[in-house]
Amino acid sequence: MFENASRTELSELGEFGLINHLAEHFESSGVSTQLGIGDDCAVFHRDEHSFSLVSTELYLEGVHFDLTFHPLKHLGYKLVTVGISDILAMNGKPEQVLISIGLSNRFSLEAVEELYAGIRLACEKYKVDLVGGDTTTSRSGLVLSITAIGSVAKSAITYRKGNVKPNDLLVVTGDLGGAYMGLQVLEREKRVFMEVPNMQPDLEQYDYIVGRQLRPEARWDVVDLLRELNVIPGVMMDISDGVASEIFHLSKLNSVGFDIFEDKLPIDPQTIETAVSFDLNPSIVALNGGEDYELLFTVGQDQYEVIKNQPDFTIIGYVTELALKNQLITKAGNSFDIKAQGWPESQK
Amino acid sequence: MFENASRTELSELGEFGLINHLAEHFESSGVSTQLGIGDDCAVFHRDEHSFSLVSTELYLEGVHFDLTFHPLKHLGYKLVTVGISDILAMNGKPEQVLISIGLSNRFSLEAVEELYAGIRLACEKYKVDLVGGDTTTSRSGLVLSITAIGSVAKSAITYRKGNVKPNDLLVVTGDLGGAYMGLQVLEREKRVFMEVPNMQPDLEQYDYIVGRQLRPEARWDVVDLLRELNVIPGVMMDISDGVASEIFHLSKLNSVGFDIFEDKLPIDPQTIETAVSFDLNPSIVALNGGEDYELLFTVGQDQYEVIKNQPDFTIIGYVTELALKNQLITKAGNSFDIKAQGWPESQK
Repeated sequence: MFENASRTELSELGEFGLINHLAEHFESSGVSTQLGIGDDCAVFHRDEHSFSLVSTELYLEGVHFDLTFHPLKHLGYKLVTVGISDILAMNGKPEQVLISIGLSNRFSLEAVEELYAGIRLACEKYKVDLVGGDTTTSRSGLVLSITAIGSVAKSAITYRKGNVKPNDLLVVTGDLGGAYMGLQVLEREKRVFMEVPNMQPDLEQYDYIVGRQLRPEARWDVVDLLRELNVIPGVMMDISDGVASEIFHLSKLNSVGFDIFEDKLPIDPQTIETAVSFDLNPSIVALNGGEDYELLFTVGQDQYEVIKNQPDFTIIGYVTELALKNQLITKAGNSFDIKAQGWPESQK
Repeated sequence: MFENASRTELSELGEFGLINHLAEHFESSGVSTQLGIGDDCAVFHRDEHSFSLVSTELYLEGVHFDLTFHPLKHLGYKLVTVGISDILAMNGKPEQVLISIGLSNRFSLEAVEELYAGIRLACEKYKVDLVGGDTTTSRSGLVLSITAIGSVAKSAITYRKGNVKPNDLLVVTGDLGGAYMGLQVLEREKRVFMEVPNMQPDLEQYDYIVGRQLRPEARWDVVDLLRELNVIPGVMMDISDGVASEIFHLSKLNSVGFDIFEDKLPIDPQTIETAVSFDLNPSIVALNGGEDYELLFTVGQDQYEVIKNQPDFTIIGYVTELALKNQLITKAGNSFDIKAQGWPESQK
């Protein structure tokens, strides 16, 4: 029954193509709806001074997580991180989450309690309330869904499409590529374990990157810091799909380009060592590996002094006027176009 | 890794037992959180006069719907109905929805467009905005999640636990059991089709009940009508799991009982005929069949005259002071205890 006379494969559009295609048919009619489909969150009028923010994410076994190596407590924590990261990406303060779970009967109550112990830990850490959700049976793996609610001052909200001009600085928080390399290590250990079940994996030397994958932290501290510094970014996103993918969106929405300097990319030594041992280019890993849940934003040149003194902020490049022209300037001074997804084979 | 030394099966608790068990560990700390886990929606302070309402539901292939007989356009419509019904159950006005979909690659773009055509139709009908969501790959069937947002005047909000006293009237909207009998017909036709693929099902004589199953309407008109009538229910719920299950919750939360009169149960003639042809008792079908998405509420005796003249409202019983004692008074004048789930075999 899914066959139509005309059939277009979803892979021809990609996720964002699909969202844009579907969104074309919807118009916002409600008086309290400020911004609909297309940003990290939906935005609503709250009161004279603030907006409400709402975001929702599906998180599916076999697609987003692998229970053979993802402890349930960490998974619960990561779910909350993923959910509230979208609120932070709009410079907002997360306040509540609703979490739905679809469970197959292979889960025991004790397993569900582990998952919720992680959720509770994250709620306490991030100071958000779990206020509702839905539990149901699932025929097919663990299904998780999180809705995050928050608020932001009207004067401080940051969109994906915003106030961006050439020479603005592109800033990233924390370091990049760790979560991706952590996943590579975990998947390798899983393959080894499948072949030699008695082998105990030694993950100690990978503690940082494995932690980045299994139990990432949402950067609520960055939103606080920006407020303390009196800095309101021109545009901001969280890094879930990788810097390359995120700047593709930012450049498209704002009709600008970005020059990124390879030697400025913040990469942890453990990420570099592991990438090299996997025969991967650490810079490519930093640009394309997703799930860092760091924040990526622009500020005007006049903020340079304020930004450069923050140990957790790295200026990795700047805005150019060449719409959709996103380039990596290598250590050797060569420049290459950055593709949204993947990387030219010859650059590996 | 799901095996613990101690293992408790989820079936020992049931869905509501699980939610209550997990909710015990969470305390609401946020200043704007009014009510957390346990009602149809989470409730937040909006302004001096109103609350915001947020609800979320998972809707999974193989559990909540069967794509062999559920057209995607109807499924999209039903998803919105299911989502906003929780807002209506608190006497609220739905305003926005966020919808997430997990899709396997057997879906074409045209199939997804069908689903969204139904979502759009429902959004237009119910005057709600689709403001966001998430699309992702699914390894295992179609995964849907809806978050509904709405508002309600502080003076009009109806909870599951509320102002209920003995002799209050128990009122239901529309008619009962149709969606359940529609499902029985569809599942029978599916079995026939599996055996004799060339057989074309003739569903015309089942149009009403099949429609109740595949494309139910949310009772936004009831919330409008209650306001026009100046009636604020003591407690209210929507009927997703069946009247028997819903009054079990209401009686437990409010420490009351309910007497329900079999001859008052509103049942459509098509539901009755079909139930009889399936050798089922129509009253049992009305009490236990879920997915009607009608509203069930209590009002004081002083509202009797107002309620009884409304063709879409039926007074099916009243509140008693016997906590947790819920009885069906049969046409013959006998009384039987109503069980939350199922029905004593001897009463069939």
